[in-house]
Amino acid sequence: MIIDGKGLSNHLDSSMKAEVKALHKVGIEPKLVVIIVGHDPASQIYVRNKHRKAIKLGITSIIERRPEDFTQDELLALIDQYNRDETVHGILVQLPLPKQIDETAIIRAIAIEKDVDGFRPENVGKLFNNSEGYYPVSCTPKGIMTMLAHYQINPKSQHAVIVGDSNIVGRPMGALLLNAGATVTYTHILTKDLPSFTRTADILIVATGVAHLVKGTDIKPGATVIDVGMDRDANGKLVGDVDFDSAKNVAGAITPVPGGVGPMTITSLMQQTLELTKLATRKTLEPVK
Amino acid sequence: MIIDGKGLSNHLDSSMKAEVKALHKVGIEPKLVVIIVGHDPASQIYVRNKHRKAIKLGITSIIERRPEDFTQDELLALIDQYNRDETVHGILVQLPLPKQIDETAIIRAIAIEKDVDGFRPENVGKLFNNSEGYYPVSCTPKGIMTMLAHYQINPKSQHAVIVGDSNIVGRPMGALLLNAGATVTYTHILTKDLPSFTRTADILIVATGVAHLVKGTDIKPGATVIDVGMDRDANGKLVGDVDFDSAKNVAGAITPVPGGVGPMTITSLMQQTLELTKLATRKTLEPVK
Repeated sequence: MIIDGKGLSNHLDSSMKAEVKALHKVGIEPKLVVIIVGHDPASQIYVRNKHRKAIKLGITSIIERRPEDFTQDELLALIDQYNRDETVHGILVQLPLPKQIDETAIIRAIAIEKDVDGFRPENVGKLFNNSEGYYPVSCTPKGIMTMLAHYQINPKSQHAVIVGDSNIVGRPMGALLLNAGATVTYTHILTKDLPSFTRTADILIVATGVAHLVKGTDIKPGATVIDVGMDRDANGKLVGDVDFDSAKNVAGAITPVPGGVGPMTITSLMQQTLELTKLATRKTLEPVK
Repeated sequence: MIIDGKGLSNHLDSSMKAEVKALHKVGIEPKLVVIIVGHDPASQIYVRNKHRKAIKLGITSIIERRPEDFTQDELLALIDQYNRDETVHGILVQLPLPKQIDETAIIRAIAIEKDVDGFRPENVGKLFNNSEGYYPVSCTPKGIMTMLAHYQINPKSQHAVIVGDSNIVGRPMGALLLNAGATVTYTHILTKDLPSFTRTADILIVATGVAHLVKGTDIKPGATVIDVGMDRDANGKLVGDVDFDSAKNVAGAITPVPGGVGPMTITSLMQQTLELTKLATRKTLEPVK
């Protein structure tokens, strides 16, 4: 079975469109600000795709482009401006940032109620502690959970193996799966005999940035394989971290690249923009004690 | 090899005593407040042991005992009093709390600079993201890392298996081991075929509260086995989550119960009290921009 992230993303658009329309009717205009510094080519594509999706859904999208030599103080001032702007509900700073800017400081400068990427330590801590209540979560793992739910793949008591333990994908992915009742193994660059782990996975999440790292022989027959990679092969073709051709006949379900995880990441971003909009405007209407 | 947590804890006392003495000389008096609500017998013992260790080291220790029917608002007011008290450097609320009190709300009420247990979401998030800089971490896993380092057991590229995924022990333990370069597997009550995981562990951490859950046959020969359990067997004897008698001949290194993890938890608490004291007083002397 091919997990059609693109199709699911488009399917979820209609309900989000309706939600935006309903918010507009009561005078609420969901607004997302995306800040991009420099000219990383992949980042340019991601930002463009986010903007297009927002427009399609009726979400107001502002892209702030700044040059490669933009300073940290200038970026902090820009964030501060949007933190104080009550018409803005989500602020996203596209990573990676140029060398002169400290990503950690930038992430912590975004107001917690506008942290649409869920990268602030408070939101990460709530995720890792499986806290109650709403908090934003890193968009790629969130989108993967939405895909698993839609395809009725329940992680409870399954062995989920994460390959790659980045703060943006691997670590929050493991936390979400642990919170859903999975047994979770984190593997990474220092792991010895990686295939001995991947072969025991009922759900295998690969997020390493290494083209075709995982082959069909590294996969347990029938497993669900989620490929987060967006790599280029020797011919410049867009491929994943999983060797799709050898993996597709072993896996029970697998995401393609492109058309798998990528579109769902953007869908999660839009969902979280709407959640933060509702939280912010509800707070205005009914002040919390 | 038996890992002597009690001995290591006593060994570390001398350097902490010297540190407290040096702080006293410059007019700084490290002070820890422990709040205990109700009469849970295990909690009474833990609090007494913490108090004794603080006294031994020269740390000022205040125990605030409150009755079982103490309300959440009363507890919040007590915490607020110590948050505003500049002579206090660490505040610990002994868990569990009686049913009428929301633990999450209490944890988040402690000022972040006095969160000596490292339970606030900001500190948990920093741990999970392997952030730079100092932040307090849950004391039991921190003490286990200190033991591993002292016994020169390097987690890098080792497979660490955590049994029990609580927010106080299992989850932060896995994060610390992941940050140290281990491959980490979280297992728990929903895990299928637990021994199939424990038998692959180079480092096995058991924190379930189930007496003698893990037997010698569940352990990989030569593994390091850390037993966080403090359970009572049928005869009322204090035992661990690991069946020590069958495990000690299989494990390469193992902690006893009592005398293993318990004393190191208290040592970590004292270390973190001193760290927070130094941070708070340094801040007074050299204001951060």
